[in-house]
Amino acid sequence: MNKKTSALHEKEGVSKPETTNKVSAEKIKFNRAKQNSVNDFVTNILDGNITFLSRAITLIESTNVKHQQKANEILDCCLPYANNSVRIGITGVPGVGKSTFIESFGKHLTSKGKKVAVLAVDPSSSINKGSILGDKTRMEELVTDKNAFIRPSPSGTSLGGVAQKTRESIILCEAAGFDTIIIETVGVGQSETVVHSMVDFFLLLKLAGAGDELQGIKRGIIEMADAIVINKADGENEKNAKIAKVEFNRALHLYPIKESKWLPKVLTASALHNLGIEKIDTMISDYISLTKENKYFNNKRNEQNKYWLLSTIEQQLKDNFYQNPKIKNALATEINNLEKGSTTPFNAAKRLLKL
Amino acid sequence: MNKKTSALHEKEGVSKPETTNKVSAEKIKFNRAKQNSVNDFVTNILDGNITFLSRAITLIESTNVKHQQKANEILDCCLPYANNSVRIGITGVPGVGKSTFIESFGKHLTSKGKKVAVLAVDPSSSINKGSILGDKTRMEELVTDKNAFIRPSPSGTSLGGVAQKTRESIILCEAAGFDTIIIETVGVGQSETVVHSMVDFFLLLKLAGAGDELQGIKRGIIEMADAIVINKADGENEKNAKIAKVEFNRALHLYPIKESKWLPKVLTASALHNLGIEKIDTMISDYISLTKENKYFNNKRNEQNKYWLLSTIEQQLKDNFYQNPKIKNALATEINNLEKGSTTPFNAAKRLLKL
Repeated sequence: MNKKTSALHEKEGVSKPETTNKVSAEKIKFNRAKQNSVNDFVTNILDGNITFLSRAITLIESTNVKHQQKANEILDCCLPYANNSVRIGITGVPGVGKSTFIESFGKHLTSKGKKVAVLAVDPSSSINKGSILGDKTRMEELVTDKNAFIRPSPSGTSLGGVAQKTRESIILCEAAGFDTIIIETVGVGQSETVVHSMVDFFLLLKLAGAGDELQGIKRGIIEMADAIVINKADGENEKNAKIAKVEFNRALHLYPIKESKWLPKVLTASALHNLGIEKIDTMISDYISLTKENKYFNNKRNEQNKYWLLSTIEQQLKDNFYQNPKIKNALATEINNLEKGSTTPFNAAKRLLKL
Repeated sequence: MNKKTSALHEKEGVSKPETTNKVSAEKIKFNRAKQNSVNDFVTNILDGNITFLSRAITLIESTNVKHQQKANEILDCCLPYANNSVRIGITGVPGVGKSTFIESFGKHLTSKGKKVAVLAVDPSSSINKGSILGDKTRMEELVTDKNAFIRPSPSGTSLGGVAQKTRESIILCEAAGFDTIIIETVGVGQSETVVHSMVDFFLLLKLAGAGDELQGIKRGIIEMADAIVINKADGENEKNAKIAKVEFNRALHLYPIKESKWLPKVLTASALHNLGIEKIDTMISDYISLTKENKYFNNKRNEQNKYWLLSTIEQQLKDNFYQNPKIKNALATEINNLEKGSTTPFNAAKRLLKL
């Protein structure tokens, strides 16, 4: 895999030491943000002001408690104006051409008068690794489009934390009038599953190759896909793309019919040459029509909200438990006992819970 | 699906009212069990005494705290003698012939001098639903085999609870000298995942049909399978079984190579006519050799123990939280708010955690 060509993994060209970078960035953000009231933020966001949108997302992403409080107030005020968008998740390994695809797809949408926000969920990114620069420089045209808003992945150590920030950013983008939200992710850890749980439509980007690239599909990912798009289907690759299309169609066939009643599609595209993009747009519209009519669209969003409520609670309960130093030590001992075979998992759990 | 022919789902022929049944059953079990000390139990279990094994499992399954304490002491004493077995998970929808397969496979193993214990994980079963009778009457020959021990699924409302009891029963069976433990399950809820997490080898039973039965495969199940056995491959069905074999082989091909380095196999069998059973036995031996050599076997068991330790803890943390009446009420309100769109999942979670 060529990591250097991946937007999310761009690690070059940013050389400042971590600490300076973080501290000064926080300071600049804070000085900016404190000048405006919650009301200022909300009014400007609802007005579609991208600078305020961007600053509000910075507050969401901040680890400063005061920032978070302000962010929560802004979120609460924006909430009634959110939800009116189509949320599209896009995943694919580095090198598959995600940035080029999003640029091409995004330009197509804005040319039709749509407003497109591009967010990312990348648990491996962080400010000092340069993912911000990475993302933006890889979508040269879209980044200058006034109807597009590109925001790199928030940094964070836990996928849950990164995902929470992204979900909250979606709400702000929607309140700011963005009607299409694209969430990009690379297949790091469970990130596709997390993105899948926050979007309406989930698109898997693939490359056609010698055929054995099908081997590399991550567990469960085909099952989540509402569509597989085989990118770079141009020139000599076209034939391979067609073969891959047949194979993927066959693979999709093996799964039970989805609750959405949508039959996942396999399409080919060449994002670089803007080929096949229109069809993908139409397909997603078809999906939205179908699922809005059969109520799946709203049901899924409700289910997603419940899922996020419960998983936030459960994550917090676990964190409280495992971060207790007494538990940390005892857990290490019990795991050792398990490996020696001197206790059962259930007895060990009982002892730990008693602490 | 013909529920009546499924062992786990047998619901007929048991007509006693639930309460009488449960109370009297507990009483009989208690009176029996109390006569023997922990030491009696352990000595007899290690001696391979099936009556004591059976009674000890009854203690494990009991909801009575005293019984559970005694069960824990027995477990602790048996633990050093456990672990020396091959644990095989078998799943398949009702009607696929699980009981017939296990009978045929089990007889084959005992004829080679093996000792076979058959346990079940079925979250939908309970004593008064008759799953005990069901299981036992469906394996007429194996049940009378002195080298076989058949125990139906413990009853319970939560899959986690049922699974914990089964896992503890595995330890006792191993201590009693059973060298092959078969865990049967029907695909109810997440039961395959749970069984997968307690076995060394996971076998999916399928039927050959018109071809479109492949559609019905549950999400993720092919990925978990170390082997797919197409049962009832006899008579007119043989041709279909061969076609299905090709299709399943293709499906297995789509997944990345397993951590075990084992390439999942597709075999055909006719359990009713004892065809293909020997090959399945050989295949499982091959798997065990491979994974013992590459250390995966032990690593996986260690991982499974850790998994059960953490999941027991986390389940308990969740239970404590959600069963709090204050939380119950507030949670209902917050879910309502989410559906109305008046709060975010994260703010709702924060409020609930403050309680």
